[in-house]
Amino acid sequence: MELLLRHDREGIAFLHMNAPERLNALSDEMLAALQAQIDALSEDRETRVVVLSGAGKAFCAGHDLKQMQAGRQAEDKGRAYFADLFSRCARAMTGLTRLPQPIIAQVHGIATAAGCQLVASCDMAVAAQGTRFGVNGVNIGLFCSTPMVALSRNIPRKRAFEMLTTGTFIDADEAQALGLVNRVVPAERLETETQSLAETVAQKLSAAVKIGKRAFYDQLELDLEAAYDHTAQVMVENMLWRDTEEGISAFLEKRKPDWS
Amino acid sequence: MELLLRHDREGIAFLHMNAPERLNALSDEMLAALQAQIDALSEDRETRVVVLSGAGKAFCAGHDLKQMQAGRQAEDKGRAYFADLFSRCARAMTGLTRLPQPIIAQVHGIATAAGCQLVASCDMAVAAQGTRFGVNGVNIGLFCSTPMVALSRNIPRKRAFEMLTTGTFIDADEAQALGLVNRVVPAERLETETQSLAETVAQKLSAAVKIGKRAFYDQLELDLEAAYDHTAQVMVENMLWRDTEEGISAFLEKRKPDWS
Amino acid sequence: MELLLRHDREGIAFLHMNAPERLNALSDEMLAALQAQIDALSEDRETRVVVLSGAGKAFCAGHDLKQMQAGRQAEDKGRAYFADLFSRCARAMTGLTRLPQPIIAQVHGIATAAGCQLVASCDMAVAAQGTRFGVNGVNIGLFCSTPMVALSRNIPRKRAFEMLTTGTFIDADEAQALGLVNRVVPAERLETETQSLAETVAQKLSAAVKIGKRAFYDQLELDLEAAYDHTAQVMVENMLWRDTEEGISAFLEKRKPDWS
Repeated sequence: MELLLRHDREGIAFLHMNAPERLNALSDEMLAALQAQIDALSEDRETRVVVLSGAGKAFCAGHDLKQMQAGRQAEDKGRAYFADLFSRCARAMTGLTRLPQPIIAQVHGIATAAGCQLVASCDMAVAAQGTRFGVNGVNIGLFCSTPMVALSRNIPRKRAFEMLTTGTFIDADEAQALGLVNRVVPAERLETETQSLAETVAQKLSAAVKIGKRAFYDQLELDLEAAYDHTAQVMVENMLWRDTEEGISAFLEKRKPDWS
Repeated sequence: MELLLRHDREGIAFLHMNAPERLNALSDEMLAALQAQIDALSEDRETRVVVLSGAGKAFCAGHDLKQMQAGRQAEDKGRAYFADLFSRCARAMTGLTRLPQPIIAQVHGIATAAGCQLVASCDMAVAAQGTRFGVNGVNIGLFCSTPMVALSRNIPRKRAFEMLTTGTFIDADEAQALGLVNRVVPAERLETETQSLAETVAQKLSAAVKIGKRAFYDQLELDLEAAYDHTAQVMVENMLWRDTEEGISAFLEKRKPDWS
Repeated sequence: MELLLRHDREGIAFLHMNAPERLNALSDEMLAALQAQIDALSEDRETRVVVLSGAGKAFCAGHDLKQMQAGRQAEDKGRAYFADLFSRCARAMTGLTRLPQPIIAQVHGIATAAGCQLVASCDMAVAAQGTRFGVNGVNIGLFCSTPMVALSRNIPRKRAFEMLTTGTFIDADEAQALGLVNRVVPAERLETETQSLAETVAQKLSAAVKIGKRAFYDQLELDLEAAYDHTAQVMVENMLWRDTEEGISAFLEKRKPDWS
């Protein structure tokens, strides 16, 4: 059985974590499968949007703790393995941010620790009512230090600090109020609502969405002046595309653009 | 007819974009008029607060698309013109941030693309109920890359990303919940409520407000220690002003300060 | 009478500002007492969590204005004294952030100017219903430039700007909605609810909480890649602790960890 299923439909790649019996834990194998898809999608000019979901009761419950404990058998007590693991995990998480296509997390059940980080690392997220979010590693003595990188860039810092040091969960409505998810929908509509959001984005001029996503994260890390210098150049490139000329003409002529 | 009207009353400069038939588009002429006012206000020691509003159905609908399309006639297909345009636009937007006086956007109707950027770039914003905000350039193939610089510094990133890639609008209440506007008021009270906010700020010691506004944006781009180093110096200067000595004395003596 | 009372119970240090007649103003003496506790706590391996509260009607009303005015008697009109004062204040505020233990503000009555900064500088805050928060120095001609460093890192910028330039107060519910406090509780339950939050954190593995708190603020000031590089190393160290090995084993074996 494949760990990470993919099917494609009309420019949308649906990635489905498929280890329900392990709550879609980010094992070495799951991380490798995720990285392989990130690498493939980075070169994939047909795909316009990506949706990431999970099979079974949980979206994702974080790292595979059994596998991590097994790593302690090494002579160095696991140091090299852990360093490699967290590096691979960070590479996958930043890979979602660097992916040319927008990626939407379709979240249900629970999203904990690195599973919550996965939600925070996606560009957008739709959650089923009742979904619970936590960065609860502190409960077992392992502070969610890498998950907090993504989380603290999504929600206000005092609330992030509370989640991290108390290990308590927040529900989907609170996650939305704080900015961790975009929409909360009834569980039975999770798939269609997420797909609808994906389709909305997929209908846009893909090149514009891709140049925009990249510029979005680039400018967030620059000061105001540098951010404008950078994005002004992006706007110039964007303006010079034939499809953008057509898009603006169509708008002015009150017709649909011909982007075929 | 003047593109940007100005009248002054009791230390408040009211700027009124006056191209209603073009939804107050930021044409070359409108940007020049705005920049001229920014330059004038930067030297203007009488003005304590600025209010920016728009005539007609919309606050501002962004760039002037007809004019932009015309720019393509040049030999370089418009590259130089577009580079200059986005540079001038960024200069005006950052000019609002660097303006010594606080500037309040008085928003009604719609604020889209660079019009939404204008709201985000003002220090505060009051919106009429029913106002709609969008960064919908993606709908015509032109991602709102420069508007997102201001927007993503106002609201949580997942929501900014959604607005940018879906082109959907948010209403005034949501804009307030997210942090894009300070207050939402009934349309018939928009002018008086905005003016009331402006008057509140105008009644403060203007030098303190100005040194404070500048320090506000300066420290936001520094790390914690550098931010404190910088603002501590600002506090020392502020303390040494005669009017501040009087302000504190008046407070301790339970009387009004004499700042005449 | 001591200015800053301390009692310890089960790993929690309760600091209680005790100058009710001066609304717990941050006088030279109060700042010194606070700094002494920060220094002591930094070396204190028994204490797991800190709670900061205030006696009397207010949590803290900011700087001691009488003392500041007296500073003007010096030959330099107070310049050296003010520079030293704001430097000492900034040292105490950043000291709260650098404290190894999480510190929770237990807030009631009013928290104004540097008192509001104190709330913003703590890692978490619990407020009694009816508590009012303001950075109202502008009302007396002294812009809250140093308090805004902490405030603007807690709440959306347009709302911070409004508080700073209008001097108006927000109530506890709004403070929570904006991210300045974590919880709002009835006044009669303020102490027990804050204590309950402190106990929750105190029950975690203290070393993990401390390494996590430090990494939390460190990574906030780094770009995404550097933030992951840093926190990945923190995770590796954390994984190699004996208590963390035990914590994970206990979780996998569905028993309580033995962290004695």
